[in-house]
Amino acid sequence: MSETKMWGGRFRQQTAGLVEAYTESVSYDYLLYAQDIAGSSAHAKMLAKQGVLTQDEATQIVNGLAQIKKEIENGEFKWQQKLEDVHMNIESRLTELIGEAGKKLHTGRSRNDQVALDFRLFVSDSLRNWQELLKALCQVFINQAEQHIHTLLPGCTHMQPAQPVSLAQHLLAYVAMFKRDSERMNDCDKRTRISPLGAAALAGTTYPLNPLAVADELKMYGTFINSMDAVSDRDFVAEALFCAGLTMTHLSRICEDLIIWANPMFGFINLPDAYATGSSIMPQKKNPDVAELMRGKVGRVYGDLFALLTTLKGLPMTYNRDLQEDKQPFFDANQTVSHSIQLMTGMIGELTFNPQKMYKALKQGFLNATELADYLVGKGIAFREAHHITGSAVALAEEKNLTLEDLQLSELQSLCSLIDSDVYEVLKVENAVARRNTPGGTGEKSIKAQLEIFKSFVK
Amino acid sequence: MSETKMWGGRFRQQTAGLVEAYTESVSYDYLLYAQDIAGSSAHAKMLAKQGVLTQDEATQIVNGLAQIKKEIENGEFKWQQKLEDVHMNIESRLTELIGEAGKKLHTGRSRNDQVALDFRLFVSDSLRNWQELLKALCQVFINQAEQHIHTLLPGCTHMQPAQPVSLAQHLLAYVAMFKRDSERMNDCDKRTRISPLGAAALAGTTYPLNPLAVADELKMYGTFINSMDAVSDRDFVAEALFCAGLTMTHLSRICEDLIIWANPMFGFINLPDAYATGSSIMPQKKNPDVAELMRGKVGRVYGDLFALLTTLKGLPMTYNRDLQEDKQPFFDANQTVSHSIQLMTGMIGELTFNPQKMYKALKQGFLNATELADYLVGKGIAFREAHHITGSAVALAEEKNLTLEDLQLSELQSLCSLIDSDVYEVLKVENAVARRNTPGGTGEKSIKAQLEIFKSFVK
Amino acid sequence: MSETKMWGGRFRQQTAGLVEAYTESVSYDYLLYAQDIAGSSAHAKMLAKQGVLTQDEATQIVNGLAQIKKEIENGEFKWQQKLEDVHMNIESRLTELIGEAGKKLHTGRSRNDQVALDFRLFVSDSLRNWQELLKALCQVFINQAEQHIHTLLPGCTHMQPAQPVSLAQHLLAYVAMFKRDSERMNDCDKRTRISPLGAAALAGTTYPLNPLAVADELKMYGTFINSMDAVSDRDFVAEALFCAGLTMTHLSRICEDLIIWANPMFGFINLPDAYATGSSIMPQKKNPDVAELMRGKVGRVYGDLFALLTTLKGLPMTYNRDLQEDKQPFFDANQTVSHSIQLMTGMIGELTFNPQKMYKALKQGFLNATELADYLVGKGIAFREAHHITGSAVALAEEKNLTLEDLQLSELQSLCSLIDSDVYEVLKVENAVARRNTPGGTGEKSIKAQLEIFKSFVK
Amino acid sequence: MSETKMWGGRFRQQTAGLVEAYTESVSYDYLLYAQDIAGSSAHAKMLAKQGVLTQDEATQIVNGLAQIKKEIENGEFKWQQKLEDVHMNIESRLTELIGEAGKKLHTGRSRNDQVALDFRLFVSDSLRNWQELLKALCQVFINQAEQHIHTLLPGCTHMQPAQPVSLAQHLLAYVAMFKRDSERMNDCDKRTRISPLGAAALAGTTYPLNPLAVADELKMYGTFINSMDAVSDRDFVAEALFCAGLTMTHLSRICEDLIIWANPMFGFINLPDAYATGSSIMPQKKNPDVAELMRGKVGRVYGDLFALLTTLKGLPMTYNRDLQEDKQPFFDANQTVSHSIQLMTGMIGELTFNPQKMYKALKQGFLNATELADYLVGKGIAFREAHHITGSAVALAEEKNLTLEDLQLSELQSLCSLIDSDVYEVLKVENAVARRNTPGGTGEKSIKAQLEIFKSFVK
Repeated sequence: MSETKMWGGRFRQQTAGLVEAYTESVSYDYLLYAQDIAGSSAHAKMLAKQGVLTQDEATQIVNGLAQIKKEIENGEFKWQQKLEDVHMNIESRLTELIGEAGKKLHTGRSRNDQVALDFRLFVSDSLRNWQELLKALCQVFINQAEQHIHTLLPGCTHMQPAQPVSLAQHLLAYVAMFKRDSERMNDCDKRTRISPLGAAALAGTTYPLNPLAVADELKMYGTFINSMDAVSDRDFVAEALFCAGLTMTHLSRICEDLIIWANPMFGFINLPDAYATGSSIMPQKKNPDVAELMRGKVGRVYGDLFALLTTLKGLPMTYNRDLQEDKQPFFDANQTVSHSIQLMTGMIGELTFNPQKMYKALKQGFLNATELADYLVGKGIAFREAHHITGSAVALAEEKNLTLEDLQLSELQSLCSLIDSDVYEVLKVENAVARRNTPGGTGEKSIKAQLEIFKSFVK
Repeated sequence: MSETKMWGGRFRQQTAGLVEAYTESVSYDYLLYAQDIAGSSAHAKMLAKQGVLTQDEATQIVNGLAQIKKEIENGEFKWQQKLEDVHMNIESRLTELIGEAGKKLHTGRSRNDQVALDFRLFVSDSLRNWQELLKALCQVFINQAEQHIHTLLPGCTHMQPAQPVSLAQHLLAYVAMFKRDSERMNDCDKRTRISPLGAAALAGTTYPLNPLAVADELKMYGTFINSMDAVSDRDFVAEALFCAGLTMTHLSRICEDLIIWANPMFGFINLPDAYATGSSIMPQKKNPDVAELMRGKVGRVYGDLFALLTTLKGLPMTYNRDLQEDKQPFFDANQTVSHSIQLMTGMIGELTFNPQKMYKALKQGFLNATELADYLVGKGIAFREAHHITGSAVALAEEKNLTLEDLQLSELQSLCSLIDSDVYEVLKVENAVARRNTPGGTGEKSIKAQLEIFKSFVK
Repeated sequence: MSETKMWGGRFRQQTAGLVEAYTESVSYDYLLYAQDIAGSSAHAKMLAKQGVLTQDEATQIVNGLAQIKKEIENGEFKWQQKLEDVHMNIESRLTELIGEAGKKLHTGRSRNDQVALDFRLFVSDSLRNWQELLKALCQVFINQAEQHIHTLLPGCTHMQPAQPVSLAQHLLAYVAMFKRDSERMNDCDKRTRISPLGAAALAGTTYPLNPLAVADELKMYGTFINSMDAVSDRDFVAEALFCAGLTMTHLSRICEDLIIWANPMFGFINLPDAYATGSSIMPQKKNPDVAELMRGKVGRVYGDLFALLTTLKGLPMTYNRDLQEDKQPFFDANQTVSHSIQLMTGMIGELTFNPQKMYKALKQGFLNATELADYLVGKGIAFREAHHITGSAVALAEEKNLTLEDLQLSELQSLCSLIDSDVYEVLKVENAVARRNTPGGTGEKSIKAQLEIFKSFVK
Repeated sequence: MSETKMWGGRFRQQTAGLVEAYTESVSYDYLLYAQDIAGSSAHAKMLAKQGVLTQDEATQIVNGLAQIKKEIENGEFKWQQKLEDVHMNIESRLTELIGEAGKKLHTGRSRNDQVALDFRLFVSDSLRNWQELLKALCQVFINQAEQHIHTLLPGCTHMQPAQPVSLAQHLLAYVAMFKRDSERMNDCDKRTRISPLGAAALAGTTYPLNPLAVADELKMYGTFINSMDAVSDRDFVAEALFCAGLTMTHLSRICEDLIIWANPMFGFINLPDAYATGSSIMPQKKNPDVAELMRGKVGRVYGDLFALLTTLKGLPMTYNRDLQEDKQPFFDANQTVSHSIQLMTGMIGELTFNPQKMYKALKQGFLNATELADYLVGKGIAFREAHHITGSAVALAEEKNLTLEDLQLSELQSLCSLIDSDVYEVLKVENAVARRNTPGGTGEKSIKAQLEIFKSFVK
């Protein structure tokens, strides 16, 4: 069939290249070089201790690997696609450098447990890095909060004004999220930094290995329990991606607040220039691009998580090549989440707030209505009736286009004779905030207690 | 415009019903009744200790709630849709039962912190239940493993025969997964069983509450740090859904193995009748329906996780009604994962294996090729050459339609003169398995060590 | 082992119930009753035409099914869980009613092609219903747009004021989305309303069926091409879920706009009371609950889509029981999307806008800066310079806390001597809007042309 | 605070670079160069026709752009990150080449509508390319099917043997899937290849543009209806990603079949060497790596779809920078799906089947049981009884470890006296297949009819 032939004739050539491009991983897993070298060095030392290699061979290997690390970091290393992955690229160069001893490095090891080790170290290092970055982010929130304990703004539920709060309280809510994220990452690390080395291809090995010695050398928490699980387990990647996803969720929530606050109808903040852009057409524009992009990038990290979960679904025991699809989602998420945290740190650090606009906003939405109701309860009125009276006061003020505190005492008394002139103190938003001093509340004492907790966290 | 009017005329009526149906939650959140009652009782006791309620009022409340719990569990409680949610249904009944004191229960509390408390307790209780169920599942795997330490089957990578393994090793790989799942759930519980009570609507409260006392009464790990975070945090739900999703992933991997093993080309297992179905058309069929459905249901739990993550994306501070969409995904996932674990427990417990078919399968795929290569290395041949010689032996055997151990010694020696008759012992799959006795390997000693670890886990 | 026994002893009983609960579908697939009955009637008629049944038998079947339909719709039908699914429930009742002929209905048919037929009809009917609902929604948007052609508000990009637009233009943007959704649903229907009947279990049948006759009777677009594909294809469900997901996305975008507009800092809209709720604590609150919930529910529909996609991944040929997990996601999404469209229709229909607040907002953000730049280009100045001059004007106005049109002519001329008093007409937002009359723009002529297109769509 | 300063001191510098890296897009959107140049050329020609540019200016622009295209394709173009995106890179070079006229190209256009145009053209071109690739894939399936009409294998449901089918029928089931995919892509293209040019920033423009002329020049189906929708609509990307996802689903199903068939217990296929790999440790291995990776990559494309849907959720009107996150998911999915289709085409084209092993497999699982039941029905026995008798025959054969056709006539007659020696013809799997000749069935006539349909599709 000539039609097919014509097409088929060109195909084999094209396919060969495509197969290589489809299956190679060195174009992205070169990122694992430091972990691969650390893992191989530890393996070589252990082999020597166990008498599988001579001490001299191990020394040659360790030194050779150290030299390769320098070559890579100096940009002198020649990555070769035909050698498929980071492991073969490094091993091949090692043999080039030190000869026979290099060929013995792989003794008692398979690529299945080797790649699992490298990737576990990489994910663990990333988790630890994220925690450091989150602490730096929390520090700038704390700095801002300390300066804005007495800056008040409308606290919203349902994006409707609810009760006045301190800006510090609002900012520390984010710190509470990131503290939790950091603890979750720490838990994840305990399941990640476990050595799979010694599982070999899937069944363990006949060489007298000491997996625990390798784990200790690499400062890991322990070793695998079952070899078949060890080579096919990618739970740690999924869990780390979930951690990244939740941190992105929290960042997206801040971005949403910032974008709304930057709109001139609110005008609560001035974005630092470095984090905004203008328009080539509209000369007046200052767009919160970084916050928008960051909000958008939460999708990307969710996508990375879902990609891996889909890949894992229904895989038969043990290692299947599908698992090669574990790395790119993580590398993408790692870059996204670490850059995002850093940018948020810079953006919050340089942000300035407009306390006047926030204060003015407190005039809209009857944020002190709860105070009036509570005041009436204090006067002995049942809450349901207090709520009703307050509703009438709100309606009256709304009709006159006034705030509650603008109403005359006589007007208030016409609604309830128990109301006295002390009510005006109660209605002040400053006092409304000051009164909320139970643990975790928005009162000054309570905020200062929170600051202690959070400062000790970021230390 | 008559057209619109006509349609509009009927619409308002229909809409009213739709709005109620769209926004009510009691049709599903009634499941929280036990947690709601426990939380309210603890709140009442604390209010009394703090002098906000009298001791007598608190006692009336606690007794009233206890009675309501009985009514619910006896099926006598009348749930009313018009009262919207579980909280209002219970509070309304309480006031009916005990009068004025009932109206005081809500003092210093808002539905925002109340629902967060109830749901945290529910999710925590679920996480603990899952851990118990997983231990029961691990126990049946351990039971089967103990009976099959000497049952051998092809260990696969890439779903191709790789090396012979003990069936016990294969079964314990699943136990390793579920042990990890259980630990992850335990970590999640630490972030879940935290009391948000006292955060009130969003800003804390002016009543002299003692949040820690409530948390202690409910055996929780602690209290919230920041009130605005406390009422809008649903991280614990997302994390619990992630835990559920990963457990379903592991179950789906077992299901895949079972479905393949039940195919007559493998025939490695006999499914218990209770977990299979026949066909109304094809009289010979015995379909692994439960395993198939369970593999399918992993999608459902991933869907629940992504539903919630999507809902959380980009929400401004603090509580938004979007968050009501947190419960149904969790209730769905909770039922799915707990039923699935239980059914897998029953299915594995009653499963019978066909060791003969497994053993026969070891004849296909040259699973002992690695042994030959290692044997040659032991004779002093470099691994690369050993690998080459083994390849030739495999080719020779394949050509003659034989296994490696069926080849004549002379035939083997023609490939490498160092091969001696001791090779036949090495090629026995039993010995291949027995030799892999490093920690975590498939050798008997190693499996027994694993069994000790896992048995102490399920205790 | 007594420990295991104790637990095992109770287990079998509990399991039996769980297996039934896990595998049954009648609790939700009863929703397919109308489609099942229509499909069975068509099948019976075809069997009679082909001589497989007698005409009398077919008549008995068709009448019996009609009676069952009435029983179901009158609430008299007894659904039995032990009969597993809707098909067996109906067939069993049919045989009860008409005897032997009932048993012949299933000739040449399998549950595999039967359920596929029923579900295809159900999904198709849903797709058609959604299209009708979307047209009603578009109608209310059109109605509002017609009343607000001359209501102006800030058009935003990056949620920053960009250029003034007509409210009609903003509202019709949503209509453009829903028109596209409707067309996508229509395309999906072409692939959905295809009959799989005649594929039998997987291989076709030995009876002389006429699949096309059944398809014609059910007003379907055609029949399956390949039997093995026919029984395992669930693409139509995934595609319909995607359609639902995208419509929810669009609804979520409207909700976001409404929620922001309802905040008093904007105050652009008054939500109809029926679509908002108050607070039991804060008497002043009017929360946009329906909009928030609808925004939240987009997650649920995405979750439904991803649940099914996950389930489909990697399934071997042909029908697998995993596919039973196709229905609940669709039923959930169907209810969510159809209720959401209807509620949005009611909410938009009853919404009132505050043109004064919108007009006042036009004073903030220099929305007419582009007009000044264009004016300067018209005077022969290169755009880059025009942009620069405009930037200076904005800076000057900002410094003086004025709008561009508040600046004195002399002030403007100090920036560029070509500016004349005609600039003030150009700077009027009304004129800025009026000038944009190319197709699709916000000018009156352009909006009226859009209205024609959209009105003809909703007809 | 010295601690913060130290960290802060380095930060601003680092941040500046990060902001640029975070917001730039030229590193990936350079892929749009051909579409950007085509769009700009069409825009320039239209501007000249409308009298906005002179004919000479338009000619300079078109020629300049043609030269830039050559520079890019010859690798001589210098992409500059500081120019942010593909559009500014090209426009800047154009002005360098042709001076003033280059600066006029952007008249009446904004980056908002420009990028939407470019991306729509790119997605449309991709959709068309996928359709061509799918046809080539279908062609190799058709070629294989034509050679295997008489090759029989077990048709499975629930991965259990059900009824014998022709291998051609199995292969054509995939063709049915890809034909449907192709039609879905075609529908998507109708909504994709719509020109947004003329929407400008969001509100249309004051220049006398002719959007339809641009659309015609670019062979597009039409133009946008509403400018605010036009600049913020990314539905076409989501829909194209969904199309890609469903095609990957279908590919993953083939991969699952191939991986199982390549296992030696089945041995139904020999994978071409180019699509498999060996093991560095286990000399006997031939792993189906390409099929495994492709099955794994379905996750990646689902992830891309979910990423975009998440990004779109809840965005306020109109363009928001979040939308920049539309491109990378699509570029990733485009490469994944087009490479996957091509590799599957190569793999299926070179695949060889083992008809003997398939035929031998037909002996297991009583695939002809349905035939016996149908035979009995033909003898006048009610189906339910026929099913029962067949069950007894299966049990008898199983007990004797025989197939149904191995049973003696006397043995069969002991179960039902109506059975005669003609039963053995009926039990032949060849005849079972041959009898299924209704449209879409596995009989030869039916398969040939399918081949006609599919051949006309791939033409």
